[in-house]
Amino acid sequence: MRWAEGFVAVDWGTTNRRAYAIDAEGKCTAELADDRGVLSIGAGGFEAAVSEIREKLGDRPMLLAGMIGSNRGWIEVPYVRCPAGLDELARGIVRSPDGSAVLVPGVAYENSRVDIMRGEEVQILGAAADGEVPQDCLVCHPGTHNKWIRLEAGRILSFRTVMTGELFNLLKAKSILSDLLSGRVEAGDAFLMGARKGLAGSGVTAELFETRANVLLGRMPAEDGASFISGLLIGEDVRIGLAAHPSIRVVAIGRPDLTALYAVALKEAGVGTEQASGERAFIAGAKQIVELIQ
Amino acid sequence: MRWAEGFVAVDWGTTNRRAYAIDAEGKCTAELADDRGVLSIGAGGFEAAVSEIREKLGDRPMLLAGMIGSNRGWIEVPYVRCPAGLDELARGIVRSPDGSAVLVPGVAYENSRVDIMRGEEVQILGAAADGEVPQDCLVCHPGTHNKWIRLEAGRILSFRTVMTGELFNLLKAKSILSDLLSGRVEAGDAFLMGARKGLAGSGVTAELFETRANVLLGRMPAEDGASFISGLLIGEDVRIGLAAHPSIRVVAIGRPDLTALYAVALKEAGVGTEQASGERAFIAGAKQIVELIQ
Repeated sequence: MRWAEGFVAVDWGTTNRRAYAIDAEGKCTAELADDRGVLSIGAGGFEAAVSEIREKLGDRPMLLAGMIGSNRGWIEVPYVRCPAGLDELARGIVRSPDGSAVLVPGVAYENSRVDIMRGEEVQILGAAADGEVPQDCLVCHPGTHNKWIRLEAGRILSFRTVMTGELFNLLKAKSILSDLLSGRVEAGDAFLMGARKGLAGSGVTAELFETRANVLLGRMPAEDGASFISGLLIGEDVRIGLAAHPSIRVVAIGRPDLTALYAVALKEAGVGTEQASGERAFIAGAKQIVELIQ
Repeated sequence: MRWAEGFVAVDWGTTNRRAYAIDAEGKCTAELADDRGVLSIGAGGFEAAVSEIREKLGDRPMLLAGMIGSNRGWIEVPYVRCPAGLDELARGIVRSPDGSAVLVPGVAYENSRVDIMRGEEVQILGAAADGEVPQDCLVCHPGTHNKWIRLEAGRILSFRTVMTGELFNLLKAKSILSDLLSGRVEAGDAFLMGARKGLAGSGVTAELFETRANVLLGRMPAEDGASFISGLLIGEDVRIGLAAHPSIRVVAIGRPDLTALYAVALKEAGVGTEQASGERAFIAGAKQIVELIQ
């Protein structure tokens, strides 16, 4: 493969994929984003799904990261274990049968507790390599599953996944709390009240229901429900994230609306948060891995 | 209304209803159970839904309890506040416009935290009146929403709702954990391991995801997933339930498969559990209320 003449990097997740054409100078010249995540592609359909990207972004070597390397994806790539940096990711790649693509491994943390990630590692290590996040810090990376990632010397030392986003969406879609969750989430008093409850850790599975009681008893406006419950789940999330790292520099990276909410809950826990942009970090990480495997 | 000649008592919930014909001697002579819960009946449809029961079980005065008295039901009945016994329920009834039915209030707990119930109160207070549960104890009443109900002198002193059943069902129906939750829940080692984690209270929203990591890393058989996650949520539930009542007699009432699981988690928390049958308790409670309102 002639990577030096340019390549295509794909962040291929469960429900979406995003592909970037990188030229010989390392510049991103074109990109593609669609909802052809791995779950939308049946077994046996991945060669065609890869060709589709080649047709649009050029016939170049490809670096594929994320769920595409999972047991539901194209080719399963074993996890590399923490501590893991870009070197470990590069050593763990698996080549496609025709040799025209490489798949990046996910990262596993195995200790008294265990955890896994597939997709965030390229972005976070890219951000660290680029100086976008410090070499030593706790990264908060919200999304469907929030990840607390402990970086040390620019490598992933450990991490913890919290299902906050998915739980919020499940409760919103179809639960006794759905009505309350139709409103907008805002970082105001209701969010803060929820965050305080979550941080206290007295029992989120009961406090979710208590929200409904507060509304039915006229103690909380129904339109505050979404903000309160978001605060509750994010407060619980921050409690979990900080438990193992009580005093550390925290950097939030990802969707600005979400990182702003986490910053409010972190502040309530007495922790200041720096905000980092994750936008170009995936490309930065992909370029580093390509350099290492050439 | 001539209650003394017999009546019909209805436990009318969100998704189901169960009606009992009680004769002049207080014996249950016929019953009916279907899925005509309040959510399946549109506004304006309740008169017909009530007539339907009359046609099947006899033209008698009716006592209606549960969500039928909620803002989504037929006629909204204000909650009575804790402490609440059968006397308070009887004083809080609301009569239907034609006077042929009475609706029983739900119970609200309002203190530094708040909670509500509609439906369980008749059953639990009936069980206490009948001697099926002690006058002073903590009742564990599992279901879609588990209720921890503190009885004192046969009245509801306080209670707390935990969304365990609904969360389990949401995760099973459509989440990243669905695959793992298709198996049977059994009160074995996996359940106990989960229960211990839940009791420790270090963060159920992270530990749910950790189950998936354990399976993908080959540390837990996929078929143990449902039992582990059930244990996790029930352990968290028991932690919440016991927090305010560290040393008290605990009686579990309800579906035997569920009360057995709670008993295992309670034992792990160092608390013995008595099992009570709730089958005839609703009828016992309804009969007591009818005596009080005649």
